[in-house]
Amino acid sequence: MTFAATALTLFPDAFPGTLGVSVIGQALKDGAWSLNALDIRDFSHDKHRSVDDTPAGGGPGMVLRADVVAAALDAVPHDDRPRLYLSPRGRPLTQARVRALAEGPGLVAVCGRFEGLDERVIEARGLEEICVGDFVLAGGEVAAMALIEACVRLLPGVLGAQASTAEESFEGGLLEYPHYTRPRVWEERAIPEILLSGDHAKIAAWRRAEAEKITRARRPDLWAARKAGRESET
Amino acid sequence: MTFAATALTLFPDAFPGTLGVSVIGQALKDGAWSLNALDIRDFSHDKHRSVDDTPAGGGPGMVLRADVVAAALDAVPHDDRPRLYLSPRGRPLTQARVRALAEGPGLVAVCGRFEGLDERVIEARGLEEICVGDFVLAGGEVAAMALIEACVRLLPGVLGAQASTAEESFEGGLLEYPHYTRPRVWEERAIPEILLSGDHAKIAAWRRAEAEKITRARRPDLWAARKAGRESET
Repeated sequence: MTFAATALTLFPDAFPGTLGVSVIGQALKDGAWSLNALDIRDFSHDKHRSVDDTPAGGGPGMVLRADVVAAALDAVPHDDRPRLYLSPRGRPLTQARVRALAEGPGLVAVCGRFEGLDERVIEARGLEEICVGDFVLAGGEVAAMALIEACVRLLPGVLGAQASTAEESFEGGLLEYPHYTRPRVWEERAIPEILLSGDHAKIAAWRRAEAEKITRARRPDLWAARKAGRESET
Repeated sequence: MTFAATALTLFPDAFPGTLGVSVIGQALKDGAWSLNALDIRDFSHDKHRSVDDTPAGGGPGMVLRADVVAAALDAVPHDDRPRLYLSPRGRPLTQARVRALAEGPGLVAVCGRFEGLDERVIEARGLEEICVGDFVLAGGEVAAMALIEACVRLLPGVLGAQASTAEESFEGGLLEYPHYTRPRVWEERAIPEILLSGDHAKIAAWRRAEAEKITRARRPDLWAARKAGRESET
């Protein structure tokens, strides 16, 4: 079964965008996953093709109408794919969730614009609100692309045999250790000696210590969560 | 002065991507901000135009060479713009940081690929590592686009007079209240009565209470941080 991504958007021409380049784009061409961008505006039912209206209760901006978004969602085949709404009000996306999504049949991503969706369509269609980061975008398209890219790179074969996702950031609750490559000395900065020692056990221990150091320094939240997780295991 | 965004990437054709559509794309056409995508591969100095090599100490994947990335960075005019490296190892991006960046001259964003950059170029060129979310992408391009979009929408005039960014998510440490628009009743779901009351003080109080409720439920971390911030003020 192929991982199937469907995006509901007012800007279908923005797709595939970054999803069309490099390994992700190649995998799309190879049929390792599929992408379908539906234009929400096609589901408007008035002659002006309007999709939004002013907020009830007043305030600036416009709100995407529940009936129009619901009609777009209802046009997507009813299958087991989770229906996600990219929104700063959502629960934060994690790599664990990305892994779970990548093991599933795909996803349907609703891309908001303006002030967002009428709350009733979120409730009535069981949309799960997902937040890719603690900042506000002009629309959900770039967030949907990030989510889809994160999933697709985990599909079998996409990154190729040379790559590995076992030691990257967020695995085991740690950020990744630093990388070095040739030249051995660059601008008087040398690659750490231990990495050139050929002693694989020592290299693994050094990398582990570096990963722990950087996680502690930059992400005390991850460090605390990891510590709590390990204590609850014992 | 115009907000100037420069992206260093192996996939310059991916730009402007989503940055070319809607209000952000219109502002780009209008000259409200500028975008320059530099191809890192142009700064390779061998005949194969190679930019990467195997990781010192072993392991899968490839690492972007320090000398090549440094040459690309050094070709960017030396100005006051922060030089950011989009990386899962970075400190998390916040809306407060986005606001600070939007008030500045712009930014230079390095988009990693493969296993990432040689650590020495991060140190030697003072790159600040920024993480847009707790997941791993195939490349930094979509993260750079998200960062730039978040900044540009805050530039004066970009969202237009109708919009406001004062009451959106993360302002005052809260997620945003729910939105509703016509029709008044949809699939037997009515817009909350209070929003149709015309009583602006009551509407504001209801929205505030809803924003607090959703923040508490979905983001206990934000709720705790907000509470701690308020207590330290008193």
